[in-house]
Amino acid sequence: MRSYRLEGFGGTESLAMRDEARTEPKPHEIVVRVRAASLNRRDTMILGGTYPLPARQGIVPLSDGAGDVVAIGDAVTRFAVGDRVTGSYFARWIDGRINAGLIDQLGCTLDGMLTEFAVLDEQWAARLPDHLSWHEAATLTCAGVTAWNAVTGTRIPKPGQWVLTIGSGGVSLFALQFAKLLGCRVVAITSRAEKAERLRALGADLVVSSTDIPEWGGWAREQTGGIDLVVETGGPATFAQSLIASTLYGHIVLLTLQDASGRSIEMPAALYQRSLATISRLFVGSRSNLEAMLRAVSQHRLKPVVDRVFPFAEAPEAYRHFQQGDVFGKVVIDCA
Amino acid sequence: MRSYRLEGFGGTESLAMRDEARTEPKPHEIVVRVRAASLNRRDTMILGGTYPLPARQGIVPLSDGAGDVVAIGDAVTRFAVGDRVTGSYFARWIDGRINAGLIDQLGCTLDGMLTEFAVLDEQWAARLPDHLSWHEAATLTCAGVTAWNAVTGTRIPKPGQWVLTIGSGGVSLFALQFAKLLGCRVVAITSRAEKAERLRALGADLVVSSTDIPEWGGWAREQTGGIDLVVETGGPATFAQSLIASTLYGHIVLLTLQDASGRSIEMPAALYQRSLATISRLFVGSRSNLEAMLRAVSQHRLKPVVDRVFPFAEAPEAYRHFQQGDVFGKVVIDCA
Amino acid sequence: MRSYRLEGFGGTESLAMRDEARTEPKPHEIVVRVRAASLNRRDTMILGGTYPLPARQGIVPLSDGAGDVVAIGDAVTRFAVGDRVTGSYFARWIDGRINAGLIDQLGCTLDGMLTEFAVLDEQWAARLPDHLSWHEAATLTCAGVTAWNAVTGTRIPKPGQWVLTIGSGGVSLFALQFAKLLGCRVVAITSRAEKAERLRALGADLVVSSTDIPEWGGWAREQTGGIDLVVETGGPATFAQSLIASTLYGHIVLLTLQDASGRSIEMPAALYQRSLATISRLFVGSRSNLEAMLRAVSQHRLKPVVDRVFPFAEAPEAYRHFQQGDVFGKVVIDCA
Amino acid sequence: MRSYRLEGFGGTESLAMRDEARTEPKPHEIVVRVRAASLNRRDTMILGGTYPLPARQGIVPLSDGAGDVVAIGDAVTRFAVGDRVTGSYFARWIDGRINAGLIDQLGCTLDGMLTEFAVLDEQWAARLPDHLSWHEAATLTCAGVTAWNAVTGTRIPKPGQWVLTIGSGGVSLFALQFAKLLGCRVVAITSRAEKAERLRALGADLVVSSTDIPEWGGWAREQTGGIDLVVETGGPATFAQSLIASTLYGHIVLLTLQDASGRSIEMPAALYQRSLATISRLFVGSRSNLEAMLRAVSQHRLKPVVDRVFPFAEAPEAYRHFQQGDVFGKVVIDCA
Repeated sequence: MRSYRLEGFGGTESLAMRDEARTEPKPHEIVVRVRAASLNRRDTMILGGTYPLPARQGIVPLSDGAGDVVAIGDAVTRFAVGDRVTGSYFARWIDGRINAGLIDQLGCTLDGMLTEFAVLDEQWAARLPDHLSWHEAATLTCAGVTAWNAVTGTRIPKPGQWVLTIGSGGVSLFALQFAKLLGCRVVAITSRAEKAERLRALGADLVVSSTDIPEWGGWAREQTGGIDLVVETGGPATFAQSLIASTLYGHIVLLTLQDASGRSIEMPAALYQRSLATISRLFVGSRSNLEAMLRAVSQHRLKPVVDRVFPFAEAPEAYRHFQQGDVFGKVVIDCA
Repeated sequence: MRSYRLEGFGGTESLAMRDEARTEPKPHEIVVRVRAASLNRRDTMILGGTYPLPARQGIVPLSDGAGDVVAIGDAVTRFAVGDRVTGSYFARWIDGRINAGLIDQLGCTLDGMLTEFAVLDEQWAARLPDHLSWHEAATLTCAGVTAWNAVTGTRIPKPGQWVLTIGSGGVSLFALQFAKLLGCRVVAITSRAEKAERLRALGADLVVSSTDIPEWGGWAREQTGGIDLVVETGGPATFAQSLIASTLYGHIVLLTLQDASGRSIEMPAALYQRSLATISRLFVGSRSNLEAMLRAVSQHRLKPVVDRVFPFAEAPEAYRHFQQGDVFGKVVIDCA
Repeated sequence: MRSYRLEGFGGTESLAMRDEARTEPKPHEIVVRVRAASLNRRDTMILGGTYPLPARQGIVPLSDGAGDVVAIGDAVTRFAVGDRVTGSYFARWIDGRINAGLIDQLGCTLDGMLTEFAVLDEQWAARLPDHLSWHEAATLTCAGVTAWNAVTGTRIPKPGQWVLTIGSGGVSLFALQFAKLLGCRVVAITSRAEKAERLRALGADLVVSSTDIPEWGGWAREQTGGIDLVVETGGPATFAQSLIASTLYGHIVLLTLQDASGRSIEMPAALYQRSLATISRLFVGSRSNLEAMLRAVSQHRLKPVVDRVFPFAEAPEAYRHFQQGDVFGKVVIDCA
Repeated sequence: MRSYRLEGFGGTESLAMRDEARTEPKPHEIVVRVRAASLNRRDTMILGGTYPLPARQGIVPLSDGAGDVVAIGDAVTRFAVGDRVTGSYFARWIDGRINAGLIDQLGCTLDGMLTEFAVLDEQWAARLPDHLSWHEAATLTCAGVTAWNAVTGTRIPKPGQWVLTIGSGGVSLFALQFAKLLGCRVVAITSRAEKAERLRALGADLVVSSTDIPEWGGWAREQTGGIDLVVETGGPATFAQSLIASTLYGHIVLLTLQDASGRSIEMPAALYQRSLATISRLFVGSRSNLEAMLRAVSQHRLKPVVDRVFPFAEAPEAYRHFQQGDVFGKVVIDCA
């Protein structure tokens, strides 16, 4: 079997493909034939050595992957051979609050999914909905749960309220799709007008190009009467506009804290003085959150958006495509 | 102009139609040409003298009505002539929590909507969505807000979670419709199998006849894995089944507390011992709640379900039809 | 070493004291020299075979106990020899919500604390505050956490608000003490006027004898303007009074669901019709809850109330004393 | 009678003392013989023309004042002559959420309390606890309610949890006192070591001088295991330390958004990346909040801290003393 392993933190150069022997599952483990994996921003940070949680040297990268169970340990009760599964980002975090003992992550401190066969503790995985292709199923672990918790985690917006998303990366598109499931209206901000149609097709009620209207905050506020929830993936470049766009008692889930140059967000006093918006953060989510999201995805037969699929052998290409930034949905690597 | 007035509490005999002079609006008042009104259970209780809040003698009955503004007082700022409006149940309750000073109700301690022209303080009304007919628009004040607050008031169920409704009265059908807006799945309990198709057409994912399966609680739990929210309009006859149907951390919004014979609900110890379900109550809602509901109704172009329409002159007939109990949606009186 | 074991469910006759060999700890286990244990109502239900979760035959009874660690397994990291610890009721429930996989209980499906030496997984225990005697330290696991979650679990009452407690059992006295820590005022209901002084000494602002004022609900409401939180340990005998006593938006935590004769609670329609009180339940709590409570107990040097202490050899006597019901605080068994 | 009026926005020069005729109360009004008033930062901003809500020219300044009712309008029901009262900051905001129609403020867009006789709508006032002197009673409207809502408004910290306050201004000292009422532990940050004793006397468990330990965030975290609630009155100078001090799921109530030079807060990416702290804001509070706070103040016979009292004729002196910043508690003006 083939696995990628992280050898150093020098970018895609450090991705080494290795031929390895398959391992037998321990009593509580399952072996998953990985069919597809997908990339998240944290994966490029891990590769570059800038991720807050230091990765283990030699780790199999990527938190996101989907496959079928091909072998199980003697004591396994949650899965059977043939089950379609995906991994849980913070593998040990089942429910409640995260704490220092639960921070292990697939593809960072635990072997991840950029491999043909992944061996997981049975507690680290969840069953996949039937309607998803392998490529689609491989997109949910990180961006899906992040968007799910942004939209349903603390204060669930009500039908008729407004959610604002920024850009067309994985988290933003999932947030748009989940907000529509909740009966909300969505304003989608995009820097490229040519993406407007695809955002509308996903359910965006209003799309605005930040190239055309760089000060889109006031515009969004006028059009909507005020945004109830901003899924803030833009960081320093957009925070002030997000605050302007928000309704008096708005909620901003802050997912991006700095730009490429390392600049942090400034909280503009004159704007925030007139606002009661709450700012909150999240760390992906627990397995309970993953399972709740999968139930919703299943019920609504929701289809994740795949930007592009790369073959297993071209994983470094996939990373490079992801990093240039102009994507619409998730970048997937086929591992079948 | 013609108005009904409540003269005594002897049932429909006490409904007197009167010819009256039209009143001029005071500075903060609006005059509404009522086009339609609708009935709620509280209206038959008021008529029978069993409503907890004693009605004022001679009152114009009914909280629910819709019409267009035909005159406004000098100081009115919220409405203009021509606006389509409906009243707010607890007229003085704008936002936050209700208290003893805010309990005045349209059609009980304040003149209501069973009239050709209603005079309302401008604070007591809200603007209606455009897509609703007058008959539809007249159904929202009591049952609509009650269902809205049952479903979105305390703990909003998430997409993929299950809501259970009982019967086909106004509150139950609105709750079904709102639960679908939230992305939830719905089990609808009905005593008459012939209503199943219409419940499914409104979005019910599962319909069960309580005649076929009197012990539907266990059935619902098996089918769904446990109900997350029960909109309990059944009272003593259904409470135990609702508890059985509920998931461990379920939520039961208790809207009916006794049956026709005056029997109260018993909390079955053996069942509740194994449950962490929360039981909560509500009193319709504030004008803020009404406005939030109207925004959702407007966005989703949601259509209230009208059971039957009676002409103004046959209002007592409408009450009698409502009281026999076998309805599907709201009973409306045309006042145009 | 000596242990009691449950042999049958025939009441105190089924409590057998056995001489047993001490067990060595497995890698993740600790051995605790139990110094004291205490009784809860669930222990008499387990003994009588009426507890909802069926006990394992031959189990060591009692969830509550305190002692010092005398040996640890190789892999233990949470404790060292000499640490003072107590067990966690649902041993496997660390945080978040309980589920079917986490229901094992000390003294029911897992060996409990009525023994000289208890062997616990290191995850099942928590460190004790220093200021507590062994007798006091043995009272916290069940009644303490139950009261803590009743008072701080869902809706924390604010300083100046009113909490009502019923009786003088372990949960009621802890609830009284915790409510005072929160800055609340407390009404304590007691059936025996002679306990009034001791309740006042614990901080009760008002004490009323239910013998003198059987309809204490209205009295409490008048005196306080309405109770914000009722810790309902009285069941069918007191529920209606609790509802009457509650403020409009009150909260009743329902801990007792039936009386000795098996009668369930009736929800009096006429009363609940005028109330927006929320009714909730709880199952003791997680280890996180236990630890949070222990922090508060430690900071405030709070002293649990011990009703009476029995020597290890007289454990059946302790059960009988507990069961007759007239206690003030916790019934403790010395195991030193 | 004498009143100060704001004539221009040029600092204390704009404070003009006028001799005026007393006004008769309208039907819903009360006349209050003001005994004392107190200053808040917003009052110096209003004086300097930098307050977000533009003040009305000629207004009587100050939101905070206490006095006794000396005359009432015919229709007044809430108060009687002789009652001791204080005003509510957002006079029209009774309960629930604030909105654009409720923003009128005493001492800004409505005549305030720096006068011998204030005429207030009866809805704008609340009754005072008996144990407070007039000087103490005059300190609660703005700083008191702000601190109350910071500590009990969204997420109430539990007994044993840690609250952090910054400095010794009115809000900080009230927050310290209220946190102690809740059973919390408090870290107080002060720039002047000589204030440490007085902070301890008010209940601070730990006091640290920011002069001695400028990087007090890490220190506070080590000492406490992480702060659960920061009442952030320090702004750009302290925000990073507050974030460092916070526990993973901490809560920062942000009350100061810029420093004297107009600099805004920067959100340090590297720190916030490792944090799930929620940031929230508040606008003083509603009359309901004021009344809830007064109940707690009354029950606990809590004594506000008065820094210094100035006679009515020296109000400009009081403003200057307040503005130099080195205060311990509230600056009061005697109006008797």
